[in-house]
Amino acid sequence: MSADLSPHELRALIRKGQWTHPTSGASKGYIQANLVMMPQEQAFNFLLFCVRNPKPCPLLDVLEPGRFEPTIAPGADLRTDLPRYRIYENGTLKTEVADVRDMAHSGMVSFLLGCSFSFENALLAAGLPIRNIEEGKNVSMYVTSRDCRPAGPFTSKLVVTMRPMTPQQAIRAVQITTRFHLTHGAPVHIGDYREIGIKDFSRPEFGDPVTIRPGEIPVFWACGVTSQLAATSVPLPRVITHSPGHMFVSDLKDEDLTIL
Amino acid sequence: MSADLSPHELRALIRKGQWTHPTSGASKGYIQANLVMMPQEQAFNFLLFCVRNPKPCPLLDVLEPGRFEPTIAPGADLRTDLPRYRIYENGTLKTEVADVRDMAHSGMVSFLLGCSFSFENALLAAGLPIRNIEEGKNVSMYVTSRDCRPAGPFTSKLVVTMRPMTPQQAIRAVQITTRFHLTHGAPVHIGDYREIGIKDFSRPEFGDPVTIRPGEIPVFWACGVTSQLAATSVPLPRVITHSPGHMFVSDLKDEDLTIL
Repeated sequence: MSADLSPHELRALIRKGQWTHPTSGASKGYIQANLVMMPQEQAFNFLLFCVRNPKPCPLLDVLEPGRFEPTIAPGADLRTDLPRYRIYENGTLKTEVADVRDMAHSGMVSFLLGCSFSFENALLAAGLPIRNIEEGKNVSMYVTSRDCRPAGPFTSKLVVTMRPMTPQQAIRAVQITTRFHLTHGAPVHIGDYREIGIKDFSRPEFGDPVTIRPGEIPVFWACGVTSQLAATSVPLPRVITHSPGHMFVSDLKDEDLTIL
Repeated sequence: MSADLSPHELRALIRKGQWTHPTSGASKGYIQANLVMMPQEQAFNFLLFCVRNPKPCPLLDVLEPGRFEPTIAPGADLRTDLPRYRIYENGTLKTEVADVRDMAHSGMVSFLLGCSFSFENALLAAGLPIRNIEEGKNVSMYVTSRDCRPAGPFTSKLVVTMRPMTPQQAIRAVQITTRFHLTHGAPVHIGDYREIGIKDFSRPEFGDPVTIRPGEIPVFWACGVTSQLAATSVPLPRVITHSPGHMFVSDLKDEDLTIL
């Protein structure tokens, strides 16, 4: 079972090219992270963007230029240990690859950002529904009308994920996810999607639409895709990110990231 | 009463040279912050140090080079609105001044970091003792043997503040300060001071010793002085900080900084 692989075992499979699909559900209980690599010339400004927007862009690890072994996974290599990468040049998606050893040079800074997989485990453990998992779909993601706080040249609208729940379940979900402040924390909105500028609720910008049952309301959390929009909001020579769903799996456990 | 001054009124007095003493107790309920200004060449590494050591160095605001109006206090000027500044050159304290308009140049980045005044108000409101306030002293601060995580050239031992409490009070204090993760959060240690490398408990490195009553144990929190040791651990041409106790008073309220 892929859920039972240790992060070290999973990363070894990925590095050897024997795991090429999304990491959802793999190495259950371990923190998965969004990856952004960018030129060191803009790294201060991007770090500033993350600090100013901690809910969509919670920093798990940032490495000095040219370093690719994260402190949250000793022995790992960010150039080989994700199943799939996206390469952006001058702000435009150019290609997807399985390995970036030739592209991630000594002048690049790597950022690892929290992802909502961590709190999903806690929600499930509390008996709360995660509709996209029930329906075998990717979580619904929407680009809202809310501006993130800019930093240097970086800007982005806030991107959110949505999970439908009853009001009672939503209250419990606020309590549970509050503890996970490094993996997006409490929801940013509950209820009327128009209030955050979502026009067509049936068509999320990323991921899949899911069923909303009678008596349920949408619950919205800040989403790490925000960091990718921000990183590519400036025409930098090269930015490398994970491909959606193909995350970096660290040695940290979900519980290591609760408030301290 | 200085406690009733608005932050805007207080900063105006400071700017006019009519308030030159410590800010403890002023504008009660508003967040006070540690200040570090340093050359932009090292700002990424120092920001990284803060991100890697969030308990002693919780980031409240970071400004682009040459900007001195914080987002947490629109209209304020970090060059004039603190009562007293320390000027370090090549890692050595050179002088203390009331105004740094001539010294804070366009190549400097300003960092504002959380300070324990915020959670002290919450502790007092819960009826917990703050011995140094009871005794009219400065809080006891100790340099521990614990290394912070380094970043680029920056290193520091962890500095802690200490407040004596009964075990029951200490448990309540853990609950209360956990909510204030941007102002040092939960304690880092309780009990035996030798375990964190404190040799002479009667002689704190900074601040004053306070009375420990029968049945009380020391409770230790991470301290913002850590950021000053880190910023001056490298012989930079110039680093500017607040003078101890002479903090920047922002427009944020204590409650604005609880977990979200």
